[in-house]
Amino acid sequence: MAIPRYTVWGLPGIPEIGPGDDLVNLIGAAVEVSESEDSDAALRDGDILVVTSKIVSKAEGMQVPVADRERAIAQDTVRVVAERVHPGGVTKIVETRHGLIMAAAGIDTSNVPDGLALRLPEDPDRSARALCEGLRKRFGVSVGVIITDTLGRPWRVGQTDVAIGAAGMIVTDDLRGGVDANGRPLNVTITVLADELAGAADLVKGKATGIPVAVVRGLARLVTGLDAPGARTLVRSVDDDMFRFGSAEAYRLGYEAALAELRAQPAPKSKSVKQE
Amino acid sequence: MAIPRYTVWGLPGIPEIGPGDDLVNLIGAAVEVSESEDSDAALRDGDILVVTSKIVSKAEGMQVPVADRERAIAQDTVRVVAERVHPGGVTKIVETRHGLIMAAAGIDTSNVPDGLALRLPEDPDRSARALCEGLRKRFGVSVGVIITDTLGRPWRVGQTDVAIGAAGMIVTDDLRGGVDANGRPLNVTITVLADELAGAADLVKGKATGIPVAVVRGLARLVTGLDAPGARTLVRSVDDDMFRFGSAEAYRLGYEAALAELRAQPAPKSKSVKQE
Repeated sequence: MAIPRYTVWGLPGIPEIGPGDDLVNLIGAAVEVSESEDSDAALRDGDILVVTSKIVSKAEGMQVPVADRERAIAQDTVRVVAERVHPGGVTKIVETRHGLIMAAAGIDTSNVPDGLALRLPEDPDRSARALCEGLRKRFGVSVGVIITDTLGRPWRVGQTDVAIGAAGMIVTDDLRGGVDANGRPLNVTITVLADELAGAADLVKGKATGIPVAVVRGLARLVTGLDAPGARTLVRSVDDDMFRFGSAEAYRLGYEAALAELRAQPAPKSKSVKQE
Repeated sequence: MAIPRYTVWGLPGIPEIGPGDDLVNLIGAAVEVSESEDSDAALRDGDILVVTSKIVSKAEGMQVPVADRERAIAQDTVRVVAERVHPGGVTKIVETRHGLIMAAAGIDTSNVPDGLALRLPEDPDRSARALCEGLRKRFGVSVGVIITDTLGRPWRVGQTDVAIGAAGMIVTDDLRGGVDANGRPLNVTITVLADELAGAADLVKGKATGIPVAVVRGLARLVTGLDAPGARTLVRSVDDDMFRFGSAEAYRLGYEAALAELRAQPAPKSKSVKQE
């Protein structure tokens, strides 16, 4: 049996990105410099590029003055999911217009020039498609692209990187109806490859290294056409979401609903009149 | 600058595991067979072995008759977090005695012999430590070990693998108080390396391939002493948990609390008496 194996490496040489920069050109140039030092660094069919959303946002001009940060958060917020006041300030978990649930609508000031904050890309799947198409054309190879951001999660500490945009690759392995190695039905249903890859790439990109792009080689089976569904499909539908609100928020909604119902209830006398 | 790079591969040759099997011996033998075919497959200092919890459970005798599945779920459940009835049955999200929030307390029948269900390992960090210590002794190299399971998550579809046990490695990269590549404070705080690695390994292990162990090479900076904190430290504390209950459950608690308060309220007359 062939041993399944892949390699992940960070792509050095991406400069600080500003509004209007052409990411295909800049990533392409970084690949070419790497390639000149090591021919194995040339992109190949089946490679997947994992790109930190921050550089996509910068290229797309999503910078806002830091003074407008709160307004930008409001602008990118569809609804507040949970809110908590603590000594350091207010943590506000919101749903963004992308369907992502995250703190402060993903608006961030780290790795951003002084005085600026950065919004997420307008449409990360569209950004991924443009990058994927551009890199495929430039190098004549069939690559996939993932755009990542760093998200907290309930119940477990800290953050991991997940896919907020994807193009040219299969984002999930849908095992529903499949069988295990012994032919028995699999309980596990949908493995989210794109999120697992986003995390895998973070281990070489890191937050403090200044390397915003990783290359994954050895998972060519995941690379496919440009019309494949993107990362937007990874957002759980409302109907299927058992954690639509923070516990405190849902508790308060229930509490207020009970009060409102009781207030709307007619007084005993008028009620008996009504029943007649 | 050295290019950060690592490789992940699936370790073939692990047989079906049964109660009492010695995982150090069986993984060790599989490594030796691989090594006889390719000397690069010999374990080295800094390698990390990522092991599917299923084989750990099987070796530890965590099998239960499938008829006792519901009882086993109850046994491993500390509290019910959320519950939903749907056409296919009831989805019950619970907190396990390990602090994990997951469906059916992680009790699973896929990749398990007919008639049996499988509970999670009793103490996955302890299991990881035993494996790590055993492999370090057998091969005379300093490796790390992660034990993984497959978890769903709120807000995003599907499942990813996360670390439920870990030994001999750094499970998080705590960047709080750190700075970015430009010397500015990092907003992102704790990168959960062990979860990102668990997902990375799943991409070669998979659910349907029968490969329960992956080897990660190139992240030796994460490998450390056997006394390093395990995966239990990845469980968010109750105080810090904004999603302790499903939205429907929290709503109901709030609703019932309002009713109970009103019922406990003395009638207007006695109330005014009380005020005097």
